[in-house]
Amino acid sequence: MLIVGERLNTTRRAAADMVARRDAEAVRKEAIRQAEAGAGYIDVNTGTFLAGEGDALRWLVTTVQEAVDVPCCIDSPNPDAIRAALRVHKGRALVNSITGETGRFEALLPLVRGGECSVVALCLDDAGLPASAQDGASKGSRLIDNLLAGGVRIEDIHVDPLVRPIGADPGAALAALGTIRVLKEKYQGSPGLHFICGLSNVSYGLPRRSLLNRTFLVAAMAAGLDGAILDPLDGDLMAMVHAAEAVLGQDPNCRRYLKAHRAGRLG
Amino acid sequence: MLIVGERLNTTRRAAADMVARRDAEAVRKEAIRQAEAGAGYIDVNTGTFLAGEGDALRWLVTTVQEAVDVPCCIDSPNPDAIRAALRVHKGRALVNSITGETGRFEALLPLVRGGECSVVALCLDDAGLPASAQDGASKGSRLIDNLLAGGVRIEDIHVDPLVRPIGADPGAALAALGTIRVLKEKYQGSPGLHFICGLSNVSYGLPRRSLLNRTFLVAAMAAGLDGAILDPLDGDLMAMVHAAEAVLGQDPNCRRYLKAHRAGRLG
Repeated sequence: MLIVGERLNTTRRAAADMVARRDAEAVRKEAIRQAEAGAGYIDVNTGTFLAGEGDALRWLVTTVQEAVDVPCCIDSPNPDAIRAALRVHKGRALVNSITGETGRFEALLPLVRGGECSVVALCLDDAGLPASAQDGASKGSRLIDNLLAGGVRIEDIHVDPLVRPIGADPGAALAALGTIRVLKEKYQGSPGLHFICGLSNVSYGLPRRSLLNRTFLVAAMAAGLDGAILDPLDGDLMAMVHAAEAVLGQDPNCRRYLKAHRAGRLG
Repeated sequence: MLIVGERLNTTRRAAADMVARRDAEAVRKEAIRQAEAGAGYIDVNTGTFLAGEGDALRWLVTTVQEAVDVPCCIDSPNPDAIRAALRVHKGRALVNSITGETGRFEALLPLVRGGECSVVALCLDDAGLPASAQDGASKGSRLIDNLLAGGVRIEDIHVDPLVRPIGADPGAALAALGTIRVLKEKYQGSPGLHFICGLSNVSYGLPRRSLLNRTFLVAAMAAGLDGAILDPLDGDLMAMVHAAEAVLGQDPNCRRYLKAHRAGRLG
């Protein structure tokens, strides 16, 4: 399971403060804690800084990379900020995210073709959010095919089915799970295709969100999700990731599960 | 989700003591606690009493039914004990379990045909335990077809895919999940078919078993499980059942989830 550590996102108050103060020490600590907890990428997002986003993002990438060897997940609504961040990033970043929206697709494709980074592909297009499993799969499939045609390798694509809140639509999580299943089936000849998503949308507006988030994570892993953008310092959530890998046959001889147990990480 | 409360099974020390002492007061309390926690059936199993099993089971059924309105899941390796218990049981019991083993099938079919009870159908036959998803589905499918031919209604059948320990075979849980998926697909024209299983086998021999059990439960519910034999007094497990029903679109407007939250049952 690929874990993208979500804590250095300025929609979080603590991260916004660190970035506003350019507190490199605090950022480095946060990056190290996430990497030590199992993050394979450190998500960096300074979208709340608006006009200052690009400068903030470059600074954040550079500061994170002073501290840890794992690459960044460069997360922005703004293609210019992504381009600026990729210029200073060392190693293979994950770009979060390209979509099927014409403008965004055309702006980002030149940045992600050529194999120097991988990319989150959101099942979203000019017609908007996916309304159902089948609709999400159609949007996803068109986007995947356009990325492949544009020169992106299939193993560099992490499809995000875009989960909506179950509080607003009881079928929202089922639609995301169905999108994963349909696309996994369609591209089964290309086992390199990845699936990723954020967890917290699913529980928006409901109590005990962490319980819903980790429940959704298990269901999504059972459907084929192999990456998630989450808080790796959430012990209950990470314990469930280890348990799900063991249950789903992704952890030979339950070796990682037993190791996490010995390290006191299963609670 | 159908919850079968597993606590009145004499493989549990406390239950064995209650039954050995014929402590009706303790049994009634245990039945009431499970029903109040959401059990739709109270499992009764006195298999450890060997020669005294039939007497013990009849007493247990009668005592449980003095206390609660929910019916019993009559759980025994011994068809004679099941027959004796069914004679004293009021209402529609769940018989646990019929299998594809010739002797057991022939002994139990007369007890479960005719619509007066429902039955757990274990994916097991004369050739033994299922070795894979496809093997489990073949065994299950033959058993279902034989039950239907024998006069059992499809909505009275609760297929148990028979989950083996992942500590012994990393693919064991995947095989059970696959069995459910294949059979659900095969009998999709008959949506009344149910799926049930016990949880604790999956984690046998590993630490933090409850974590693995509830992780498996979510994956199995995502695959189509609609019943489980479990301890309804395990708060973490039941919280996850509520969360999974909400995530999987089985709880319109998250009404039961919110009710459980208000009752302090989500932790």
